[in-house]
Amino acid sequence: METMWRMNWNKRIAIVFASLALVLPMISVGGEHPNLIMTKSGVEKIRAELGSVPLFDETLKNVRQEVDAEIESGIDTPIPKDYSGGYTHERHKRNFFIMQKAGVLYQILQDEKYAKYVRDMLFQYEAMYKDLPLHPKTRSYARGKLFWQCLNDSNWLVYVSQAYDTIYNYLSAEERQQLEDNLFRPFADHISIDSPQFFNRVHNHSTWGNAAVGMIGLVMGDDELVERALYGIPFEDIDVAAKDDDGGFIFDKDGKAGFLANLDEPFSPDGYYTEGPYYQRYAMYPFLIFAQGLHNAKPDLEVLRHKDGVLLKAVDALLALADKDGEFFPLNDGQKGMSYDSGALVSAVDIAYHLGEQDPRLLSVAKDQGRVLLDDAGFSVALAIRDGEAQPFEKKSVNLSDGPDGDQGGVAVLRYGNEDLTLVYKYAAQGLSHGHYDKLSFSLYEQGDEVLQDYGLARFVNIGQKGGGNYLKENTTWAKQTIAHNTLTQNETSHFRGIYEVGSKHHSELYFYAGNDSDVQVVSAIEKNAYPGTKIHRTMALIKKENFEKAFLLDVLKVNSDSKNQYDLPFYYMGQVIQVNFNYDSPMTLGALGSNNGYQHLYVESSGRPSGDNTKFSWMDNRKFYTLTSATEPSDELLFTRLGANDPEFNLRRDPGFMIRRKDAADTVFASVVEPHGSYSPVSELAINSNSSIRELKVVYDDKNYTAVSIEDLEGQTSLFVLSNIDASVSEKHELKIDGKAYRWTGPYHHVEIK
Amino acid sequence: METMWRMNWNKRIAIVFASLALVLPMISVGGEHPNLIMTKSGVEKIRAELGSVPLFDETLKNVRQEVDAEIESGIDTPIPKDYSGGYTHERHKRNFFIMQKAGVLYQILQDEKYAKYVRDMLFQYEAMYKDLPLHPKTRSYARGKLFWQCLNDSNWLVYVSQAYDTIYNYLSAEERQQLEDNLFRPFADHISIDSPQFFNRVHNHSTWGNAAVGMIGLVMGDDELVERALYGIPFEDIDVAAKDDDGGFIFDKDGKAGFLANLDEPFSPDGYYTEGPYYQRYAMYPFLIFAQGLHNAKPDLEVLRHKDGVLLKAVDALLALADKDGEFFPLNDGQKGMSYDSGALVSAVDIAYHLGEQDPRLLSVAKDQGRVLLDDAGFSVALAIRDGEAQPFEKKSVNLSDGPDGDQGGVAVLRYGNEDLTLVYKYAAQGLSHGHYDKLSFSLYEQGDEVLQDYGLARFVNIGQKGGGNYLKENTTWAKQTIAHNTLTQNETSHFRGIYEVGSKHHSELYFYAGNDSDVQVVSAIEKNAYPGTKIHRTMALIKKENFEKAFLLDVLKVNSDSKNQYDLPFYYMGQVIQVNFNYDSPMTLGALGSNNGYQHLYVESSGRPSGDNTKFSWMDNRKFYTLTSATEPSDELLFTRLGANDPEFNLRRDPGFMIRRKDAADTVFASVVEPHGSYSPVSELAINSNSSIRELKVVYDDKNYTAVSIEDLEGQTSLFVLSNIDASVSEKHELKIDGKAYRWTGPYHHVEIK
Repeated sequence: METMWRMNWNKRIAIVFASLALVLPMISVGGEHPNLIMTKSGVEKIRAELGSVPLFDETLKNVRQEVDAEIESGIDTPIPKDYSGGYTHERHKRNFFIMQKAGVLYQILQDEKYAKYVRDMLFQYEAMYKDLPLHPKTRSYARGKLFWQCLNDSNWLVYVSQAYDTIYNYLSAEERQQLEDNLFRPFADHISIDSPQFFNRVHNHSTWGNAAVGMIGLVMGDDELVERALYGIPFEDIDVAAKDDDGGFIFDKDGKAGFLANLDEPFSPDGYYTEGPYYQRYAMYPFLIFAQGLHNAKPDLEVLRHKDGVLLKAVDALLALADKDGEFFPLNDGQKGMSYDSGALVSAVDIAYHLGEQDPRLLSVAKDQGRVLLDDAGFSVALAIRDGEAQPFEKKSVNLSDGPDGDQGGVAVLRYGNEDLTLVYKYAAQGLSHGHYDKLSFSLYEQGDEVLQDYGLARFVNIGQKGGGNYLKENTTWAKQTIAHNTLTQNETSHFRGIYEVGSKHHSELYFYAGNDSDVQVVSAIEKNAYPGTKIHRTMALIKKENFEKAFLLDVLKVNSDSKNQYDLPFYYMGQVIQVNFNYDSPMTLGALGSNNGYQHLYVESSGRPSGDNTKFSWMDNRKFYTLTSATEPSDELLFTRLGANDPEFNLRRDPGFMIRRKDAADTVFASVVEPHGSYSPVSELAINSNSSIRELKVVYDDKNYTAVSIEDLEGQTSLFVLSNIDASVSEKHELKIDGKAYRWTGPYHHVEIK
Repeated sequence: METMWRMNWNKRIAIVFASLALVLPMISVGGEHPNLIMTKSGVEKIRAELGSVPLFDETLKNVRQEVDAEIESGIDTPIPKDYSGGYTHERHKRNFFIMQKAGVLYQILQDEKYAKYVRDMLFQYEAMYKDLPLHPKTRSYARGKLFWQCLNDSNWLVYVSQAYDTIYNYLSAEERQQLEDNLFRPFADHISIDSPQFFNRVHNHSTWGNAAVGMIGLVMGDDELVERALYGIPFEDIDVAAKDDDGGFIFDKDGKAGFLANLDEPFSPDGYYTEGPYYQRYAMYPFLIFAQGLHNAKPDLEVLRHKDGVLLKAVDALLALADKDGEFFPLNDGQKGMSYDSGALVSAVDIAYHLGEQDPRLLSVAKDQGRVLLDDAGFSVALAIRDGEAQPFEKKSVNLSDGPDGDQGGVAVLRYGNEDLTLVYKYAAQGLSHGHYDKLSFSLYEQGDEVLQDYGLARFVNIGQKGGGNYLKENTTWAKQTIAHNTLTQNETSHFRGIYEVGSKHHSELYFYAGNDSDVQVVSAIEKNAYPGTKIHRTMALIKKENFEKAFLLDVLKVNSDSKNQYDLPFYYMGQVIQVNFNYDSPMTLGALGSNNGYQHLYVESSGRPSGDNTKFSWMDNRKFYTLTSATEPSDELLFTRLGANDPEFNLRRDPGFMIRRKDAADTVFASVVEPHGSYSPVSELAINSNSSIRELKVVYDDKNYTAVSIEDLEGQTSLFVLSNIDASVSEKHELKIDGKAYRWTGPYHHVEIK
C-alpha cells in the first residue's frame, strides 16, 4: 500500500476504483458502538475499575463537575455571528467540547442525563443547521457555517462525532436518520465538497477537515465519507496556484489530498512536522483521534504502521521539541507558552501510550499533565501510573530530519546536563505557510529559560482586541523576516528575498550531527540557496570543559560569497546589559535601522566599534549572567537594537538585540562563544561568578578545507576546535598544521586542549 | 527613662554623668558567656533536644556543611583592596559570616575544631589589623579598614562579637587580652571615635556602628563601649550641615545619636521605618541582634519595651510591607526581589517570636523561610513549629504612620481578598537620604504581581560591573524623581524641586483611612508642600461590587492651585498594550519627553487626545488583563512613554508608561479606575473576560466641599462615590444634592448604588 499514497490523485482514483474489491472490505464500517475513542470492551474495563484508578477518577470528577455545571446552565446554540473571541464563536466551541465530554460520561457512568443532554443539543443544531447560510464574517478563504472558517467547523465535527458515537445506541433509528440527513451529512459535505480549497490541501487545516469527515463517516457507517477523508475529493478543475490567507499554497503540487496525504507530506520519517511544534501540537489531535478511530473501526488499515509508524514517532518528536518546562520551541509561527499541558498533548501522550509500545516514560509526562483522556487510552495510562510503571522522562539531544522523505534539512536539539543548556538549531525546509525565513538560526535555553530567543509569532491568539486574535501584519513584516532571528542576514534582505515560492523550493543541508551525552556535542549545516552566490556554513557546539562553571555554546559561522556583502548577525538576548568591552555612541533620538525586511522595526539604541580582536558583551537575565565573546574585526559595527519601531499598534514586544555588522566582506568567519555563568540573588544580594571565563577567542586557521578556533580561559588553558569544511565523513582521517604544530584526527571535527 | 532619649546630647551627657550611680548598675556587664544571642541555659536546652527538632536540625546540618567546607579550604584574610564585588571585600564578608556560624556550632556541638577555627582567624585579623591603614578605596565619606566603608567594618564587628562571645571561655585570658587590645578595641574606636560622621548619625549606617560597638562592649564587659553605643559620642565640634554620599544630612538636627536615638528617630510608633522596607530589612538585624544581647546581658534596660515596644512592632510593620510572595514593596530606594527569604528576616522573625509574645502566625513565615537562627531564638521557633503551633500568616490592610511621633504622614496598604488586589499608598515623610520625591504615589499588585509599578532603585547591588554595585547616577536623575512614580508632577518639576533639604521639612497628611475587610476600603491624604500654592488631595479606594469579576481601584486626585499649571499623571503599567479608545500619533523617531527631572529618560512612543469623556487603555501582563478608565478632558494629552532615553550605560529597564497630561489647569480632578479583569492562557489559548466592565466613569460633582464620581457598568448599574473634601470626621453628617437627587450619609465618604 505504501507507494499508493504517493501517486497523484488521478492515478490513485483509478486504482481505488479498479480495486474496490480489495479496498472496500478493508474500509467497510462495523456496527458496534461506541467504537471510535471508546470501545465496548474498553468501557467495561473502565467501569470495572471505577474508583480505584486515581488519575482517571480525578479527571472524571473534574469533567463531571464541568459538564454538570453546563447542563445546569442550559443549552445555547446561538445564530453564528462572531469571530473567535466573540460570544457565538466561543459558545459553539464550548458546546462541542462539552458534548464530547458528556458523551463519555454517559458511557462511563451510564447516566442517561448525559445522553439526553447531547441528544437535545444535537437536535438544536439539527434544527438550525439545515437553513444556516455561510457564516457572516468574510475574512476566511473557506468560510464555515457555525464558525467563520471551515477549520472551526471541522473542530466541531471531530468532537461531535465522538459524542454521537457514545450516544448512538441511545438514539432511535429515526433520530439517527434525522441527525444524519439534516446535520451530519450536510455538515461533512460543506467542509469537503463545498470547500475543496480547505479540504483538499496538504495543510493542518485540511487534517482537521479530513478527520472530521472520516470520523463522522465511521460513526455513520458511511464508506463514502471515510473514503473522502482518507483520499480527498477529486480536484482537477481547481486553480492549483491559489494561496491561502497566510500566503501559503493551497494545493499540493503533486495533486495529493486527504488524511493519508496529510500524514505523508508534512511529517518526516523522524516524525518532525514541517510547520514546527506549535502547529504539530495543534495537528496531532485530529491525526491521532482519527487514527484511533480507524484503529478501532478499521484495524486492517493499520494506520498506525503507516510510513513506518510515523504517527507515534511524531509524538516522540513533538515531546523532544520542548524546553525543560515542557514549553514548545517557537519555531516558525509558534506562540510561546504553549506546552505539554495542552489538551492536545494529553491526547497525544495517552493515545501514543495506549496504541504504541507503552513507553513508561510517557507516564511521567501524563503525571505532570495531571489528567487523562476519559476513554480507553486515558484509562490505560491512568492504570499504569497507578501500578507504578512510570519512568522519568529525560530529554536527550536529538536530530530530526525534515521533509516527507527526511532529506530536506532538519532541526537539531543539543542538550547538556539535565537541560542545563539547550541549543535549538534549525536547518529545515520552509515549513509551509507558517515558515519563517530563518535558515541556520538558533535559540538557546538554560533550564527552560530563554537565553537567546526566537521571537515566535506576532499574534495574540484569540485575543479579539488584537486583530481579532489572528495573525498581525507584523508577523509578516517582522516575525517571519530573517533579521528577526539569530542568523545571518545579507544586505538587509531576508533569505530567498522573503518570497515564499522561492523558499519553498529549498532547504538547508545537514553537514554532520554529533549529539550525545558527552562534553562536546556538535551540529553543522550548510545553506546555499538563501542568497544565490553565497554559501553559509554554520557549526554549533555545546562544550563543557575545565575552568568553566557551565557548558557554553561555540558558534562558527563561515560565509563564502562570490560578491562583497554586508552581513548582519544578531543575538536576541533577553534581559539587561551588564558590561561591554568596546566604546559606542548612543543617539539622542532613536530611529529605525532600516526601511524594510524587518529592519524598519528595529531601533538603534547604540552603535560602536570593537576595541580589540575580541568583542565582549555581558548581560543578566533571570538572575543569571551571560557573556558573548566574539572574534571581531576592527571595521565591524556593533549595534544594540530594540524592537518597536514602526509599530503603532504596540503589537511587538520591546525586546533587545545585539548585532555584529560586517560590511564589504565576501568570505569571512563569525566565531563566537555564548557563555552562561554565575547567578545573582536579590535576596542575598550576592553576585556569583559574574564575569566571563574567556580571555581570548581566536580564529587561528581558516581556508577552504579547515576552520579552527582557539579559546583561552582566564587560567591560561587553551582549547582548539578544528572543523573540516569539506568532508563530514566520520571515518576520514585529517592532518593540519597550525602555528607550526601538527594536529591529527578522524572525523569532521576535532576538539583538543593545546595548552 | 523614656524622655531622656529625647533630650539633646549636652543635657543628656550631664544627666548621664550626674547619675552614674543610677545608670551604671543598670549597664554593668555580666561575666557569663555566651550571653549575647545564646545563653548558657539556652545552649543546654538546645543540646538536650538535638535531633528531635526538624527545622533546627536541618539548619544545623546545612550550616555545619557550609562551615566544614570553609574550614577545609583554609583561612584567608587578604590585605583589603577591593570595593564590594571584589575578592578582598567578599572574602572578609564571608569570613565574618562563617566565624559567627562556627561559633554557634562550637556551642551547640561542643566540637573544639569550630572554636579553634574562630580563634585562628581572629588572630590572623589581630596580626593584620594593628598596622592596617585606611582602606585604599576612597569613595566613602567614612572609610573603613577591612572594607571600603565603616558600614561594612561594622557589619564585621556585629557578627564577630557573636563569634567572640561563643568562644570567650575557650580562649585564655591572655588570648582575650591580646585580641581586645589589638583588634576589638581599636576596631570599635575606628568606627566610632575616628568616624563620628558615620557613628553619630541617625541613619541605618550608624545603627550598625552602634550595634557593633555595643555588642563587642557587652562581650568585653566594657561599660564605656556600651555607653558609647547607646548614646553616641560627643560631637559639639562637628559640621552639622555635612552630607553623606547619598545627599542626606549626616547629623541629627536635635543633636541626638547612638543606638537609642536610632531607635527613636526612624521608627514611627507603628514601627514604620522612615527609609522604607528595603532599608528597614537591612537595619532590623543590628537593631534586633543588639537588642537581644542587651535583653540577655542588661535585662534591666528593658530595651524591648522602649518606645512602647517599637522594635517588635517594627517586625510586624516590615512583614506587612510585602506582597503576597513576601517581596518588599520597593518604596524609596528599594531593590525589587528582596523578601522574607532574606537572612535579616529570619533573624527578625525568630527574635520577634522568641522575645515577643510568641505570635503563632510568625511560625508560618519561619516555615516558609525553611531555616532558623542557630541560637536561642531560632530554637524557640523550631520547637514551636515541631509542636504544631504555627498559624496561617494572612496579611490584612494596614495604615502605618511615619515620623518619630507618628505625625508625619505614613504608608497605607489596602488588601482585598487573599491579596488578590493590593494597593500601596505612600503619603509619608521624605525618608532620609534614601527617600524619593513621590508624595501621594501608589503601586498596585495582583496576587504578588506588579500591576502598576514603583520603579524602585537604580542600582545593581553588589554587581561590580555596574558602578561597583553602588547607586548609579540614574538613581538621582530618574528613580528619585517624581515623574518616575505614579503620582502628580506639576510643570515637569519634582516635588520640593527635588531638593532634599526642602523635602525633609515636609510630609503629607492623612485625611482618613478606612481599611478593613469589607468591599469598600479607602485611604485619603493631602499634600500641600510639594508645590507651594498647590494642594493635592488624593483618595484611593479598593472596591468590589456586583457585575465586576474582581475588585478594582478608584483613584480620585483633586488638585487646587493658585496658578495655572501643567499636570502630568503617569501610570507605570507592566506588560503590553492591548487596546485604547483614542487616536494617537506615533513618531518616526523617539525623542525624550523633556530635559531634566527624570523627563530626559522618557521616550515618547506615541501621543494622542481623548476621543470622548472617558479615556480607556487596556493592557495585558502575567496573562491577565487590566483596564484604566479615566475621566479626561478634550484638551488632555495622552502619552505612551518608554524608559531608556539618555541612558547610555543601559542602567534603566526599558519599562513602559501611560501618562495623562493636562495643561493650563489650576483646579481640576483626575478620576480613574484601574480594573483588573480576566485572564489569558497560552496553553488553552482562551482569553477570558478580556474587556473592561465599565461603560462610563464620570465626575458628577466637584466643588470645595464635595467631589463625586459615578461608575456605570456594562449592565447599566451605576454606583456613586462621594467624598467630603473638608471634613474627615467619621461622625459628621452630610447631605448633598446631585442631579436633583439628595444623598445623606455620615463620615468622610459615601459609596452607594444609584441605578
